[in-house]
Amino acid sequence: MAPLTGDFSYGEWNAVYNALSFGIAAMGSATVFFWLQLGNVSKNYRTALTITGIVTWIATYHYFRIFNSWVEAFEVNEVGGAYAVKVSGTPFNDAYRYVDWLLTVPLLLIELILVMKLPAGETAALSTKLGVASAVMVALGYPGEIQENLAVRWFWWALAMIPFAYVVFSLLVGLGAATAKQPESVAGLVSAARYLTAVSWLTYPFVYIIKNVGLAGPTATMYEQIGYSVADVMAKAVFGVLIWAIANEKSRLEGEGKLLR
Amino acid sequence: MAPLTGDFSYGEWNAVYNALSFGIAAMGSATVFFWLQLGNVSKNYRTALTITGIVTWIATYHYFRIFNSWVEAFEVNEVGGAYAVKVSGTPFNDAYRYVDWLLTVPLLLIELILVMKLPAGETAALSTKLGVASAVMVALGYPGEIQENLAVRWFWWALAMIPFAYVVFSLLVGLGAATAKQPESVAGLVSAARYLTAVSWLTYPFVYIIKNVGLAGPTATMYEQIGYSVADVMAKAVFGVLIWAIANEKSRLEGEGKLLR
Repeated sequence: MAPLTGDFSYGEWNAVYNALSFGIAAMGSATVFFWLQLGNVSKNYRTALTITGIVTWIATYHYFRIFNSWVEAFEVNEVGGAYAVKVSGTPFNDAYRYVDWLLTVPLLLIELILVMKLPAGETAALSTKLGVASAVMVALGYPGEIQENLAVRWFWWALAMIPFAYVVFSLLVGLGAATAKQPESVAGLVSAARYLTAVSWLTYPFVYIIKNVGLAGPTATMYEQIGYSVADVMAKAVFGVLIWAIANEKSRLEGEGKLLR
Repeated sequence: MAPLTGDFSYGEWNAVYNALSFGIAAMGSATVFFWLQLGNVSKNYRTALTITGIVTWIATYHYFRIFNSWVEAFEVNEVGGAYAVKVSGTPFNDAYRYVDWLLTVPLLLIELILVMKLPAGETAALSTKLGVASAVMVALGYPGEIQENLAVRWFWWALAMIPFAYVVFSLLVGLGAATAKQPESVAGLVSAARYLTAVSWLTYPFVYIIKNVGLAGPTATMYEQIGYSVADVMAKAVFGVLIWAIANEKSRLEGEGKLLR
Protein backbone atom coordinates (compact mmCIF):
# COMPACT_ATOMS: atom_id res chain seq x y z
CA MET A 1 0.00 0.00 0.00
CA ALA A 2 3.04 2.23 0.39
CA PRO A 3 3.99 4.06 -2.78
CA LEU A 4 6.46 2.36 -5.09
CA THR A 5 9.91 3.65 -4.42
CA GLY A 6 13.34 3.48 -5.94
CA ASP A 7 14.49 3.89 -9.47
CA PHE A 8 13.29 1.19 -11.79
CA SER A 9 15.61 0.59 -14.70
CA TYR A 10 13.85 0.50 -18.05
CA GLY A 11 14.68 -3.20 -18.26
CA GLU A 12 13.00 -3.95 -14.90
CA TRP A 13 9.93 -1.88 -15.70
CA ASN A 14 9.66 -3.39 -19.17
CA ALA A 15 10.02 -6.98 -17.89
CA VAL A 16 6.97 -6.53 -15.64
CA TYR A 17 5.09 -4.74 -18.44
CA ASN A 18 5.65 -7.69 -20.78
CA ALA A 19 4.87 -10.31 -18.14
CA LEU A 20 1.52 -8.62 -17.51
CA SER A 21 0.72 -8.43 -21.22
CA PHE A 22 1.67 -12.12 -21.47
CA GLY A 23 -0.87 -12.71 -18.68
CA ILE A 24 -3.63 -11.00 -20.68
CA ALA A 25 -2.82 -12.99 -23.85
CA ALA A 26 -2.50 -16.35 -22.07
CA MET A 27 -5.62 -15.99 -19.92
CA GLY A 28 -7.73 -14.53 -22.72
CA SER A 29 -6.83 -17.20 -25.25
CA ALA A 30 -7.31 -19.99 -22.71
CA THR A 31 -10.81 -18.64 -22.01
CA VAL A 32 -11.79 -18.77 -25.67
CA PHE A 33 -10.40 -22.29 -26.00
CA PHE A 34 -12.38 -23.64 -23.03
CA TRP A 35 -15.67 -22.09 -24.09
CA LEU A 36 -15.34 -23.08 -27.76
CA GLN A 37 -14.78 -26.68 -26.59
CA LEU A 38 -18.06 -26.77 -24.64
CA GLY A 39 -19.93 -28.49 -27.48
CA ASN A 40 -17.19 -31.14 -27.79
CA VAL A 41 -17.58 -32.61 -24.31
CA SER A 42 -20.58 -34.47 -22.95
CA LYS A 43 -23.18 -32.67 -20.86
CA ASN A 44 -21.68 -34.12 -17.66
CA TYR A 45 -18.52 -32.01 -18.02
CA ARG A 46 -19.88 -28.77 -19.43
CA THR A 47 -20.29 -27.10 -16.05
CA ALA A 48 -16.67 -27.92 -15.15
CA LEU A 49 -15.45 -26.55 -18.51
CA THR A 50 -17.65 -23.45 -18.23
CA ILE A 51 -16.13 -22.68 -14.82
CA THR A 52 -12.62 -23.37 -16.15
CA GLY A 53 -13.23 -20.62 -18.70
CA ILE A 54 -14.74 -18.30 -16.11
CA VAL A 55 -11.59 -18.58 -13.98
CA THR A 56 -9.35 -17.48 -16.87
CA TRP A 57 -11.93 -14.86 -17.91
CA ILE A 58 -11.88 -13.25 -14.46
CA ALA A 59 -8.07 -13.39 -14.63
CA THR A 60 -8.11 -11.72 -18.08
CA TYR A 61 -10.12 -8.84 -16.62
CA HIS A 62 -7.71 -8.45 -13.73
CA TYR A 63 -4.57 -8.67 -15.92
CA PHE A 64 -5.96 -5.82 -18.03
CA ARG A 65 -6.50 -3.81 -14.85
CA ILE A 66 -3.05 -4.64 -13.39
CA PHE A 67 -1.36 -3.84 -16.72
CA ASN A 68 -3.11 -0.46 -16.97
CA SER A 69 -2.34 0.31 -13.33
CA TRP A 70 1.34 -0.54 -13.94
CA VAL A 71 1.50 1.77 -16.96
CA GLU A 72 -0.22 4.65 -15.13
CA ALA A 73 2.05 4.31 -12.10
CA PHE A 74 5.12 5.33 -14.15
CA GLU A 75 6.33 7.90 -16.59
CA VAL A 76 8.77 6.61 -19.17
CA ASN A 77 10.72 9.12 -21.25
CA GLU A 78 13.81 9.29 -23.34
CA VAL A 79 16.59 11.10 -21.60
CA GLY A 80 19.92 11.44 -23.35
CA GLY A 81 19.61 8.44 -25.64
CA ALA A 82 18.16 6.05 -23.03
CA TYR A 83 14.79 5.44 -21.44
CA ALA A 84 14.28 6.82 -17.95
CA VAL A 85 11.56 5.44 -15.70
CA LYS A 86 10.03 7.55 -12.92
CA VAL A 87 7.09 6.83 -10.63
CA SER A 88 4.22 9.09 -11.67
CA GLY A 89 2.52 9.40 -8.26
CA THR A 90 -0.53 7.45 -9.42
CA PRO A 91 -0.88 4.34 -7.18
CA PHE A 92 -0.12 0.84 -8.46
CA ASN A 93 -3.05 -1.17 -7.12
CA ASP A 94 -1.79 -4.38 -5.53
CA ALA A 95 -5.24 -5.52 -4.50
CA TYR A 96 -6.40 -6.63 -7.96
CA ARG A 97 -4.49 -9.89 -7.50
CA TYR A 98 -6.19 -10.60 -4.18
CA VAL A 99 -9.67 -9.80 -5.48
CA ASP A 100 -8.90 -12.11 -8.41
CA TRP A 101 -7.74 -14.95 -6.17
CA LEU A 102 -10.71 -14.54 -3.83
CA LEU A 103 -12.99 -15.33 -6.78
CA THR A 104 -10.89 -17.72 -8.86
CA VAL A 105 -9.13 -19.96 -6.33
CA PRO A 106 -12.36 -21.45 -4.91
CA LEU A 107 -13.68 -21.79 -8.49
CA LEU A 108 -10.66 -23.66 -9.77
CA LEU A 109 -10.87 -26.13 -6.92
CA ILE A 110 -14.55 -26.60 -7.76
CA GLU A 111 -13.76 -27.23 -11.46
CA LEU A 112 -11.34 -29.99 -10.41
CA ILE A 113 -13.94 -31.56 -8.11
CA LEU A 114 -16.67 -31.32 -10.79
CA VAL A 115 -14.61 -32.97 -13.50
CA MET A 116 -14.03 -35.97 -11.22
CA LYS A 117 -17.80 -36.56 -11.18
CA LEU A 118 -17.99 -37.91 -7.63
CA PRO A 119 -21.36 -38.74 -6.02
CA ALA A 120 -23.45 -35.55 -5.61
CA GLY A 121 -23.17 -35.39 -1.80
CA GLU A 122 -19.39 -35.76 -1.89
CA THR A 123 -19.09 -33.08 -4.60
CA ALA A 124 -21.08 -30.58 -2.52
CA ALA A 125 -19.18 -31.33 0.70
CA LEU A 126 -15.73 -31.13 -0.92
CA SER A 127 -16.60 -27.95 -2.87
CA THR A 128 -17.76 -26.24 0.30
CA LYS A 129 -14.78 -27.29 2.42
CA LEU A 130 -12.06 -26.52 -0.12
CA GLY A 131 -13.86 -23.42 -1.45
CA VAL A 132 -14.19 -21.84 1.98
CA ALA A 133 -10.66 -22.80 3.10
CA SER A 134 -9.11 -21.30 -0.03
CA ALA A 135 -11.10 -18.05 0.28
CA VAL A 136 -9.96 -17.75 3.93
CA MET A 137 -6.38 -18.36 2.78
CA VAL A 138 -6.52 -15.46 0.30
CA ALA A 139 -8.21 -13.15 2.80
CA LEU A 140 -5.51 -13.87 5.41
CA GLY A 141 -2.71 -13.18 2.94
CA TYR A 142 -3.80 -9.66 2.02
CA PRO A 143 -3.19 -7.79 5.31
CA GLY A 144 0.44 -8.96 5.17
CA GLU A 145 0.91 -8.14 1.49
CA ILE A 146 0.21 -4.44 2.07
CA GLN A 147 2.58 -4.24 5.05
CA GLU A 148 6.12 -2.94 5.14
CA ASN A 149 6.79 -4.32 8.63
CA LEU A 150 8.54 -7.67 8.12
CA ALA A 151 7.30 -9.25 11.36
CA VAL A 152 3.70 -8.41 10.46
CA ARG A 153 4.20 -9.79 6.97
CA TRP A 154 5.46 -13.09 8.43
CA PHE A 155 2.54 -13.20 10.87
CA TRP A 156 -0.12 -13.05 8.13
CA TRP A 157 1.91 -15.32 5.88
CA ALA A 158 1.96 -17.95 8.64
CA LEU A 159 -1.78 -17.58 9.27
CA ALA A 160 -2.59 -17.95 5.56
CA MET A 161 -0.38 -21.05 5.41
CA ILE A 162 -2.79 -22.94 7.70
CA PRO A 163 -5.71 -23.12 5.23
CA PHE A 164 -3.11 -23.39 2.42
CA ALA A 165 -1.66 -26.54 3.96
CA TYR A 166 -5.15 -27.92 4.52
CA VAL A 167 -6.14 -27.45 0.85
CA VAL A 168 -2.89 -28.82 -0.58
CA PHE A 169 -3.02 -31.78 1.81
CA SER A 170 -6.65 -32.49 0.80
CA LEU A 171 -5.70 -32.39 -2.87
CA LEU A 172 -2.73 -34.69 -2.52
CA VAL A 173 -4.11 -37.16 -0.03
CA GLY A 174 -7.88 -36.80 0.18
CA LEU A 175 -8.49 -36.70 -3.55
CA GLY A 176 -5.91 -39.45 -4.05
CA ALA A 177 -8.43 -42.09 -3.04
CA ALA A 178 -11.04 -40.65 -5.41
CA THR A 179 -8.48 -40.56 -8.22
CA ALA A 180 -7.97 -44.28 -7.91
CA LYS A 181 -11.63 -44.74 -8.86
CA GLN A 182 -11.25 -42.84 -12.16
CA PRO A 183 -10.98 -44.85 -15.40
CA GLU A 184 -7.41 -45.93 -16.16
CA SER A 185 -6.84 -43.56 -19.10
CA VAL A 186 -8.06 -40.63 -16.97
CA ALA A 187 -6.39 -41.37 -13.65
CA GLY A 188 -3.03 -40.11 -14.92
CA LEU A 189 -4.52 -36.80 -16.06
CA VAL A 190 -6.35 -36.28 -12.78
CA SER A 191 -3.15 -37.04 -10.92
CA ALA A 192 -1.28 -34.53 -13.09
CA ALA A 193 -3.92 -31.87 -12.33
CA ARG A 194 -3.63 -32.53 -8.60
CA TYR A 195 0.17 -32.28 -8.67
CA LEU A 196 0.14 -29.20 -10.91
CA THR A 197 -2.15 -27.53 -8.39
CA ALA A 198 0.13 -28.43 -5.52
CA VAL A 199 3.32 -27.33 -7.29
CA SER A 200 1.98 -24.13 -8.85
CA TRP A 201 0.34 -23.20 -5.54
CA LEU A 202 3.63 -23.68 -3.70
CA THR A 203 5.05 -20.88 -5.87
CA TYR A 204 2.80 -18.26 -4.23
CA PRO A 205 4.08 -18.44 -0.63
CA PHE A 206 7.65 -18.21 -1.99
CA VAL A 207 6.89 -15.15 -4.10
CA TYR A 208 5.23 -13.62 -1.04
CA ILE A 209 8.43 -14.28 0.95
CA ILE A 210 10.54 -12.17 -1.47
CA LYS A 211 9.52 -9.08 0.47
CA ASN A 212 9.36 -10.84 3.87
CA VAL A 213 13.12 -11.38 3.88
CA GLY A 214 13.78 -7.67 3.56
CA LEU A 215 14.23 -7.46 -0.19
CA ALA A 216 12.63 -4.23 -1.31
CA GLY A 217 12.64 -1.77 -4.13
CA PRO A 218 12.47 -2.28 -7.87
CA THR A 219 14.14 -5.70 -8.12
CA ALA A 220 11.89 -7.24 -5.45
CA THR A 221 8.82 -5.74 -7.09
CA MET A 222 9.93 -7.08 -10.47
CA TYR A 223 10.43 -10.64 -9.20
CA GLU A 224 7.14 -10.48 -7.31
CA GLN A 225 5.09 -9.35 -10.31
CA ILE A 226 6.71 -11.79 -12.74
CA GLY A 227 6.52 -14.62 -10.19
CA TYR A 228 2.81 -14.13 -9.54
CA SER A 229 2.10 -13.82 -13.27
CA VAL A 230 3.84 -17.08 -14.15
CA ALA A 231 2.23 -18.90 -11.21
CA ASP A 232 -1.21 -17.61 -12.25
CA VAL A 233 -0.81 -18.83 -15.83
CA MET A 234 0.26 -22.27 -14.55
CA ALA A 235 -2.50 -22.52 -11.92
CA LYS A 236 -5.32 -21.29 -14.18
CA ALA A 237 -4.60 -21.67 -17.90
CA VAL A 238 -2.30 -24.72 -17.93
CA PHE A 239 -4.33 -26.35 -15.14
CA GLY A 240 -7.45 -25.61 -17.19
CA VAL A 241 -6.01 -27.45 -20.19
CA LEU A 242 -5.65 -30.54 -17.96
CA ILE A 243 -9.27 -30.14 -16.82
CA TRP A 244 -10.30 -29.95 -20.49
CA ALA A 245 -8.21 -33.05 -21.33
CA ILE A 246 -9.93 -34.99 -18.52
CA ALA A 247 -13.39 -33.85 -19.65
CA ASN A 248 -12.53 -34.72 -23.23
CA GLU A 249 -11.25 -38.22 -22.43
CA LYS A 250 -14.18 -39.02 -20.15
CA SER A 251 -16.63 -37.86 -22.82
CA ARG A 252 -14.91 -40.19 -25.32
CA LEU A 253 -15.20 -43.13 -22.90
CA GLU A 254 -18.87 -42.33 -22.31
CA GLY A 255 -19.46 -42.28 -26.08
CA GLU A 256 -17.87 -45.74 -26.37
CA GLY A 257 -20.03 -47.01 -23.51
CA LYS A 258 -16.95 -47.61 -21.35
CA LEU A 259 -18.03 -45.12 -18.70
CA LEU A 260 -21.44 -44.76 -17.08
CA ARG A 261 -23.10 -41.49 -17.98
CA MET B 1 -26.57 14.51 -3.89
CA ALA B 2 -24.42 16.95 -1.95
CA PRO B 3 -20.77 16.82 -3.00
CA LEU B 4 -18.51 14.36 -1.22
CA THR B 5 -16.74 16.03 1.65
CA GLY B 6 -13.98 15.24 4.10
CA ASP B 7 -10.58 13.76 3.62
CA PHE B 8 -10.59 10.18 2.50
CA SER B 9 -7.53 8.24 3.56
CA TYR B 10 -5.92 6.24 0.76
CA GLY B 11 -7.01 3.06 2.58
CA GLU B 12 -10.67 4.14 2.63
CA TRP B 13 -10.64 5.28 -1.00
CA ASN B 14 -8.84 2.12 -2.10
CA ALA B 15 -11.23 -0.18 -0.20
CA VAL B 16 -14.21 1.24 -2.12
CA TYR B 17 -12.22 1.12 -5.39
CA ASN B 18 -11.52 -2.58 -4.90
CA ALA B 19 -15.05 -3.39 -3.75
CA LEU B 20 -16.39 -1.83 -6.96
CA SER B 21 -13.89 -3.70 -9.15
CA PHE B 22 -14.87 -6.90 -7.29
CA GLY B 23 -18.48 -6.05 -8.23
CA ILE B 24 -17.57 -5.83 -11.93
CA ALA B 25 -15.69 -9.15 -11.88
CA ALA B 26 -18.33 -11.02 -9.85
CA MET B 27 -21.33 -9.76 -11.83
CA GLY B 28 -19.62 -10.14 -15.20
CA SER B 29 -18.46 -13.69 -14.60
CA ALA B 30 -21.84 -14.71 -13.14
CA THR B 31 -23.53 -13.40 -16.32
CA VAL B 32 -21.33 -15.52 -18.58
CA PHE B 33 -21.92 -18.57 -16.40
CA PHE B 34 -25.73 -18.25 -16.55
CA TRP B 35 -25.85 -17.70 -20.29
CA LEU B 36 -23.40 -20.51 -21.11
CA GLN B 37 -25.57 -22.86 -19.06
CA LEU B 38 -28.71 -22.08 -21.13
CA GLY B 39 -28.23 -25.15 -23.33
CA ASN B 40 -27.84 -27.38 -20.26
CA VAL B 41 -31.32 -26.75 -18.80
CA SER B 42 -34.63 -27.78 -20.32
CA LYS B 43 -36.67 -25.29 -22.33
CA ASN B 44 -38.98 -24.72 -19.33
CA TYR B 45 -36.24 -22.98 -17.36
CA ARG B 46 -34.40 -21.07 -20.08
CA THR B 47 -36.39 -17.88 -19.62
CA ALA B 48 -35.66 -17.87 -15.87
CA LEU B 49 -31.94 -18.45 -16.55
CA THR B 50 -31.84 -15.79 -19.29
CA ILE B 51 -33.31 -13.26 -16.87
CA THR B 52 -30.89 -14.35 -14.14
CA GLY B 53 -28.04 -13.44 -16.51
CA ILE B 54 -29.72 -10.18 -17.53
CA VAL B 55 -29.89 -9.09 -13.89
CA THR B 56 -26.13 -9.59 -13.40
CA TRP B 57 -25.44 -8.10 -16.85
CA ILE B 58 -27.29 -4.87 -15.96
CA ALA B 59 -25.34 -4.87 -12.70
CA THR B 60 -22.04 -5.34 -14.57
CA TYR B 61 -22.81 -2.23 -16.63
CA HIS B 62 -23.66 -0.20 -13.55
CA TYR B 63 -20.60 -1.37 -11.60
CA PHE B 64 -18.41 -0.20 -14.49
CA ARG B 65 -20.16 3.18 -14.33
CA ILE B 66 -19.94 3.45 -10.53
CA PHE B 67 -16.25 2.42 -10.61
CA ASN B 68 -15.43 5.06 -13.24
CA SER B 69 -17.46 7.70 -11.40
CA TRP B 70 -15.59 6.88 -8.18
CA VAL B 71 -12.20 7.19 -9.91
CA GLU B 72 -13.12 10.49 -11.56
CA ALA B 73 -14.45 12.00 -8.33
CA PHE B 74 -10.97 11.93 -6.76
CA GLU B 75 -7.39 12.86 -7.38
CA VAL B 76 -4.83 10.51 -5.88
CA ASN B 77 -1.20 11.59 -5.73
CA GLU B 78 1.95 10.77 -3.91
CA VAL B 79 2.87 13.37 -1.32
CA GLY B 80 5.96 12.82 0.80
CA GLY B 81 6.09 9.04 0.58
CA ALA B 82 2.37 8.39 1.04
CA TYR B 83 -0.73 8.64 -1.12
CA ALA B 84 -2.98 11.66 -0.64
CA VAL B 85 -6.61 11.55 -1.76
CA LYS B 86 -8.53 14.73 -2.64
CA VAL B 87 -12.01 15.18 -4.08
CA SER B 88 -11.61 16.38 -7.66
CA GLY B 89 -14.87 18.33 -7.91
CA THR B 90 -16.31 15.89 -10.47
CA PRO B 91 -19.57 14.48 -9.01
CA PHE B 92 -19.80 10.90 -7.75
CA ASN B 93 -23.12 9.71 -9.18
CA ASP B 94 -25.14 7.91 -6.50
CA ALA B 95 -28.13 7.36 -8.77
CA TYR B 96 -26.56 4.49 -10.75
CA ARG B 97 -27.44 2.13 -7.92
CA TYR B 98 -31.09 3.19 -7.89
CA VAL B 99 -31.45 2.96 -11.66
CA ASP B 100 -29.88 -0.51 -11.40
CA TRP B 101 -32.25 -1.63 -8.64
CA LEU B 102 -35.29 -0.23 -10.44
CA LEU B 103 -34.52 -2.61 -13.32
CA THR B 104 -32.98 -5.60 -11.57
CA VAL B 105 -35.03 -6.01 -8.37
CA PRO B 106 -38.36 -6.72 -10.14
CA LEU B 107 -36.47 -8.98 -12.58
CA LEU B 108 -34.85 -11.06 -9.88
CA LEU B 109 -38.17 -11.63 -8.16
CA ILE B 110 -39.58 -12.70 -11.53
CA GLU B 111 -36.70 -15.15 -12.10
CA LEU B 112 -37.49 -16.78 -8.75
CA ILE B 113 -41.19 -17.04 -9.61
CA LEU B 114 -40.44 -18.42 -13.11
CA VAL B 115 -38.10 -21.14 -11.88
CA MET B 116 -40.83 -22.42 -9.54
CA LYS B 117 -43.00 -23.14 -12.61
CA LEU B 118 -46.33 -22.41 -10.94
CA PRO B 119 -49.58 -22.49 -12.93
CA ALA B 120 -49.56 -19.70 -15.59
CA GLY B 121 -52.19 -17.53 -13.89
CA GLU B 122 -50.40 -17.62 -10.56
CA THR B 123 -47.06 -16.80 -12.22
CA ALA B 124 -48.51 -13.69 -13.88
CA ALA B 125 -50.30 -12.48 -10.74
CA LEU B 126 -47.27 -12.96 -8.46
CA SER B 127 -44.87 -11.38 -10.98
CA THR B 128 -47.07 -8.31 -11.29
CA LYS B 129 -47.65 -7.87 -7.55
CA LEU B 130 -44.04 -8.44 -6.43
CA GLY B 131 -42.57 -6.67 -9.47
CA VAL B 132 -44.60 -3.51 -8.92
CA ALA B 133 -44.13 -3.50 -5.14
CA SER B 134 -40.36 -3.81 -5.47
CA ALA B 135 -40.14 -1.03 -8.08
CA VAL B 136 -42.18 1.24 -5.80
CA MET B 137 -39.82 0.32 -2.94
CA VAL B 138 -36.75 1.43 -4.92
CA ALA B 139 -38.46 4.62 -6.12
CA LEU B 140 -39.42 5.58 -2.55
CA GLY B 141 -35.89 5.00 -1.27
CA TYR B 142 -34.18 7.38 -3.68
CA PRO B 143 -35.54 10.76 -2.45
CA GLY B 144 -34.16 9.94 1.01
CA GLU B 145 -30.81 8.70 -0.25
CA ILE B 146 -29.97 12.10 -1.80
CA GLN B 147 -30.98 14.02 1.35
CA GLU B 148 -28.73 15.39 4.06
CA ASN B 149 -31.63 16.14 6.42
CA LEU B 150 -31.88 13.15 8.76
CA ALA B 151 -35.63 13.49 9.42
CA VAL B 152 -36.36 13.51 5.69
CA ARG B 153 -34.07 10.50 5.21
CA TRP B 154 -36.00 8.56 7.88
CA PHE B 155 -39.33 9.59 6.32
CA TRP B 156 -38.50 8.08 2.90
CA TRP B 157 -36.80 5.10 4.52
CA ALA B 158 -40.01 4.35 6.43
CA LEU B 159 -42.16 4.75 3.30
CA ALA B 160 -39.90 2.42 1.29
CA MET B 161 -40.07 -0.14 4.11
CA ILE B 162 -43.81 -0.67 3.50
CA PRO B 163 -43.45 -2.33 0.07
CA PHE B 164 -40.18 -3.89 1.32
CA ALA B 165 -42.00 -5.62 4.19
CA TYR B 166 -44.75 -6.72 1.80
CA VAL B 167 -42.27 -8.34 -0.62
CA VAL B 168 -40.19 -10.05 2.07
CA PHE B 169 -43.35 -11.28 3.79
CA SER B 170 -44.71 -12.64 0.48
CA LEU B 171 -41.43 -14.46 -0.17
CA LEU B 172 -41.21 -16.04 3.25
CA VAL B 173 -44.86 -16.90 3.80
CA GLY B 174 -46.72 -16.71 0.49
CA LEU B 175 -44.15 -18.63 -1.53
CA GLY B 176 -43.70 -21.05 1.37
CA ALA B 177 -46.86 -22.88 0.43
CA ALA B 178 -45.77 -23.10 -3.21
CA THR B 179 -42.33 -24.37 -2.15
CA ALA B 180 -43.93 -27.31 -0.40
CA LYS B 181 -45.27 -28.44 -3.78
CA GLN B 182 -41.77 -28.59 -5.37
CA PRO B 183 -40.09 -32.00 -5.83
CA GLU B 184 -38.20 -33.12 -2.74
CA SER B 185 -34.68 -32.63 -4.15
CA VAL B 186 -35.61 -29.09 -5.23
CA ALA B 187 -37.56 -27.84 -2.21
CA GLY B 188 -34.38 -27.27 -0.20
CA LEU B 189 -32.82 -25.16 -2.96
CA VAL B 190 -35.99 -23.06 -3.40
CA SER B 191 -36.11 -22.55 0.34
CA ALA B 192 -32.46 -21.46 0.33
CA ALA B 193 -33.18 -18.99 -2.49
CA ARG B 194 -36.13 -17.51 -0.57
CA TYR B 195 -34.11 -17.11 2.62
CA LEU B 196 -31.08 -15.72 0.77
CA THR B 197 -33.37 -13.10 -0.75
CA ALA B 198 -34.81 -12.19 2.63
CA VAL B 199 -31.42 -12.00 4.37
CA SER B 200 -29.51 -10.21 1.60
CA TRP B 201 -32.40 -7.77 1.18
CA LEU B 202 -32.39 -6.98 4.89
CA THR B 203 -28.84 -5.68 4.42
CA TYR B 204 -30.05 -2.75 2.30
CA PRO B 205 -32.20 -0.90 4.87
CA PHE B 206 -29.34 -1.21 7.37
CA VAL B 207 -26.78 0.18 4.94
CA TYR B 208 -29.22 3.03 4.20
CA ILE B 209 -29.44 3.73 7.95
CA ILE B 210 -25.65 4.33 8.20
CA LYS B 211 -26.24 7.91 7.08
CA ASN B 212 -29.67 8.24 8.79
CA VAL B 213 -28.09 8.02 12.23
CA GLY B 214 -25.88 11.00 11.55
CA LEU B 215 -22.75 9.18 10.45
CA ALA B 216 -21.23 11.20 7.66
CA GLY B 217 -18.02 11.75 5.84
CA PRO B 218 -15.52 9.33 4.37
CA THR B 219 -16.01 6.41 6.78
CA ALA B 220 -19.80 6.39 6.35
CA THR B 221 -19.41 6.60 2.56
CA MET B 222 -16.91 3.73 2.63
CA TYR B 223 -19.20 1.44 4.64
CA GLU B 224 -22.17 2.41 2.47
CA GLN B 225 -20.41 1.62 -0.81
CA ILE B 226 -18.87 -1.64 0.41
CA GLY B 227 -22.13 -2.68 2.09
CA TYR B 228 -24.21 -2.12 -1.03
CA SER B 229 -21.62 -3.91 -3.19
CA VAL B 230 -21.52 -7.03 -1.03
CA ALA B 231 -25.34 -7.08 -0.71
CA ASP B 232 -25.68 -6.76 -4.50
CA VAL B 233 -23.31 -9.66 -5.17
CA MET B 234 -25.25 -11.84 -2.70
CA ALA B 235 -28.70 -10.80 -3.97
CA LYS B 236 -27.87 -11.12 -7.69
CA ALA B 237 -24.88 -13.38 -8.39
CA VAL B 238 -25.05 -15.85 -5.47
CA PHE B 239 -28.86 -15.84 -5.65
CA GLY B 240 -28.56 -16.51 -9.39
CA VAL B 241 -26.39 -19.57 -8.75
CA LEU B 242 -29.24 -20.96 -6.63
CA ILE B 243 -31.73 -20.23 -9.43
CA TRP B 244 -29.40 -22.08 -11.83
CA ALA B 245 -29.09 -25.02 -9.41
CA ILE B 246 -32.90 -25.25 -9.19
CA ALA B 247 -33.29 -25.09 -12.98
CA ASN B 248 -30.54 -27.69 -13.40
CA GLU B 249 -32.04 -30.15 -10.90
CA LYS B 250 -35.57 -29.76 -12.28
CA SER B 251 -34.28 -30.32 -15.82
CA ARG B 252 -32.58 -33.50 -14.63
CA LEU B 253 -35.80 -34.74 -13.00
CA GLU B 254 -37.75 -33.96 -16.19
CA GLY B 255 -35.18 -35.91 -18.22
CA GLU B 256 -35.66 -38.92 -15.94
CA GLY B 257 -39.44 -38.60 -16.25
CA LYS B 258 -39.76 -37.81 -12.54
CA LEU B 259 -41.22 -34.35 -13.14
CA LEU B 260 -43.99 -33.36 -15.55
CA ARG B 261 -42.70 -31.16 -18.35
